[in-house]
Amino acid sequence: MNSQNLIRGVLKKDRKSLGRLISMIENRDPGIFPILAKLFPKTGRALRIGVTGFPGSGKSTIINQLAKALVKKKKKIGIVLMDPSSPFSGGALLGDRIRMREIQMDSGVFIRSMATRGKMSGLNLAARYASDALDAAGYDFILLETVGVGQLEIDVATACDVTVVVMTPDSGDEVQAMKAGLMEIADVFVVNKMDRDKEHVYFSRIKKGLEMHSELRSRKPAEVLPTAALFGKGIDALTKSLIGFGEKKLRGKLDGDRESIRAEEDIKSCIEEIFIDRLLANSQIEKKIKALIPKVKSRKQSPYEAAELILKNGIEK
Amino acid sequence: MNSQNLIRGVLKKDRKSLGRLISMIENRDPGIFPILAKLFPKTGRALRIGVTGFPGSGKSTIINQLAKALVKKKKKIGIVLMDPSSPFSGGALLGDRIRMREIQMDSGVFIRSMATRGKMSGLNLAARYASDALDAAGYDFILLETVGVGQLEIDVATACDVTVVVMTPDSGDEVQAMKAGLMEIADVFVVNKMDRDKEHVYFSRIKKGLEMHSELRSRKPAEVLPTAALFGKGIDALTKSLIGFGEKKLRGKLDGDRESIRAEEDIKSCIEEIFIDRLLANSQIEKKIKALIPKVKSRKQSPYEAAELILKNGIEK
Repeated sequence: MNSQNLIRGVLKKDRKSLGRLISMIENRDPGIFPILAKLFPKTGRALRIGVTGFPGSGKSTIINQLAKALVKKKKKIGIVLMDPSSPFSGGALLGDRIRMREIQMDSGVFIRSMATRGKMSGLNLAARYASDALDAAGYDFILLETVGVGQLEIDVATACDVTVVVMTPDSGDEVQAMKAGLMEIADVFVVNKMDRDKEHVYFSRIKKGLEMHSELRSRKPAEVLPTAALFGKGIDALTKSLIGFGEKKLRGKLDGDRESIRAEEDIKSCIEEIFIDRLLANSQIEKKIKALIPKVKSRKQSPYEAAELILKNGIEK
Repeated sequence: MNSQNLIRGVLKKDRKSLGRLISMIENRDPGIFPILAKLFPKTGRALRIGVTGFPGSGKSTIINQLAKALVKKKKKIGIVLMDPSSPFSGGALLGDRIRMREIQMDSGVFIRSMATRGKMSGLNLAARYASDALDAAGYDFILLETVGVGQLEIDVATACDVTVVVMTPDSGDEVQAMKAGLMEIADVFVVNKMDRDKEHVYFSRIKKGLEMHSELRSRKPAEVLPTAALFGKGIDALTKSLIGFGEKKLRGKLDGDRESIRAEEDIKSCIEEIFIDRLLANSQIEKKIKALIPKVKSRKQSPYEAAELILKNGIEK
C-alpha cells in the first residue's frame, strides 16, 4: 500500500489503512510525516479525551461502558490504550485489556493498544499522531487511556481537549491525586466504584477537597460525577457531559488558549522528533556514540563532552 | 560564585555549593555542562537507588527510616525527590515532603526536592545530573524518589543501579504493579504496611506473583522484603540489602550491561538536551514558532510542515 492509497483509505474510514498507519506511527517510521501532513487539514472535529487515574480505579471498565453508550448515540469512537514498555525487555504489558475486545466487534469503535520502545515522550507523541489519524478518519470521540499516574498522563492531558480523572472512594485517593498533580489537569472527575459502603461520606469528602483545590486552579472547576461502572451506573451522566464538551468544541467554544499551547507543543515536538531522529539515525553518529560508550563507562570522558564532540562533528559533516 | 569555586565547593562537600549547582540544573542553566564535565571523573562510587511505587505506599516514610539507618552506619546520603510540575500552573506539589525535614538536620544527609517545568524528560535528566553532583561530592547512597507509577519511574530506574519498588499488601496492588511495568524493573520489592491484618496471606500472594513473573524477566529475580516503616520494622533487612548492593558496586560486580546502556543513554540525552536547548533558545527560531502557531491552530499548516520549515531555515542560517 503506497502513501496515496493509505491516505485515501484513512479518509474513507478503512480500518485496515488506519491500523497500518498507526503501526507506522508506533514503529516511528519517518514516512508518517508527509502522510500526517496530508491528513492534518481534515482534523479538528474529534473531541480528544484523556482518561487517567490510578491503576485499579476502573478506567478500562469506564471506557468500555462509555464506548457502548456513545455508539448508541450514533457516535464513532476511537480508543488508544497506551502501554509504556519496559526499557529492559521491550515488551508491552497488556493486563486487563482483553475485556476491551467486547466492544472491538462494534464497527463504530476502533481500538488500538500502543507501545513504544524507549522514551515516554515517544509514546506521548505517538498518541498525538494516532489521534490525528483517527480524527481525520471521522471518529467523533477519541479516548486516550494511560496506565499510570505520572508525567505521561499530564503530557497526554495537555494534548487533549478534555481530561477525565478516575478515582475510587478509597481512603487517601484524593490526597494522592492531588500529590500526583491530577487535580490540576482534570475537567471531569469520575468517582468510580460508588457501589460500596460509606460512598456518600467519601464522595462529599472528595468534592470538598476539589473545591478547596479549585481556588488554586487556573482552569475551570472540574465536574465531579459518581459512577459504578461495573453495573453501568452513572455512565449516562458521564456520556452527556462528554457529548456537551464535543458540541462545545464543534462550535469553537472550547478553551482557545489550550489549543494554542497544543499547537506550539506540536511544532516543538516535531522539531525535536524529526531532528533527533535524523541525527540518531545517521549511521556515522551511531558509530561515534558506540565508540564513546567505553570511555564514558570508565569515566574517562563525560557524556556532556561526548555529546559536544558528536554534535560538532555532526554539524561539520 | 564562579564555576571554579563551585566545582571546588562541591568536591569539598560544601552544602551551599551543592545546592547552588542543583538549582542551576533545575533551571536548565546551560552553564552546568562544563561543571558536570569537570565533576564527572570523580563520580562512580555512589550507589544510585530509585525508589518508586504507588502514591500512598509509604515511600517517604521508608526513605526517612532508611536514611536514618544508613547514617548510623556512617554513610552519607543524598536524597532527590522528584515533583513533576503541572504544565498549566507550573507549580510543584509538595505533599507530605515536610516529614522529610526530620532528617534534613543530620549533616550526613542532603535532601533536595526538584521540579522542572515542562517535559518529563527534563525531570529525568535533571535527576541524573543531580546524582552526578552528589556522587562527585562523596555521597555513598543516592536515593531518587518519584511520585507516580508511570514512565518517569521506568526512565529513572534505567538511570539507577538499584530499583526499589514499594507496595502495600492491599488487594490488587501486585496486579497493578505488573500492569505498570514495575515488576520488570524492580531489584528489591518492599511490601510495606505489613502491620495490618492478613499480612501473611497478601505477602505470600505477592511473592507467588513475583515468582510467576520472574520467568519472564530478563533480570535477576527481585528480593522481596516486608516492612512496617512507620514502626521501623523491616528497615534493618532493607538497609543490609542496599549496603550489599553498594559493596558490589564498589567491587565492580554490578550489572555491567546496565552501565553500558546508561552511558549510551547519557550521551544521547546530552545530544538531545544540548542541541534542542540551543535550537529553541535561539530567538529567531522562537519567533518563527510563534508566527506559525495561528496557522497550525487553524489547520492551514500541519505541525510537521511547520517543523520542517523551521529546521530548514534554522540550518541554513
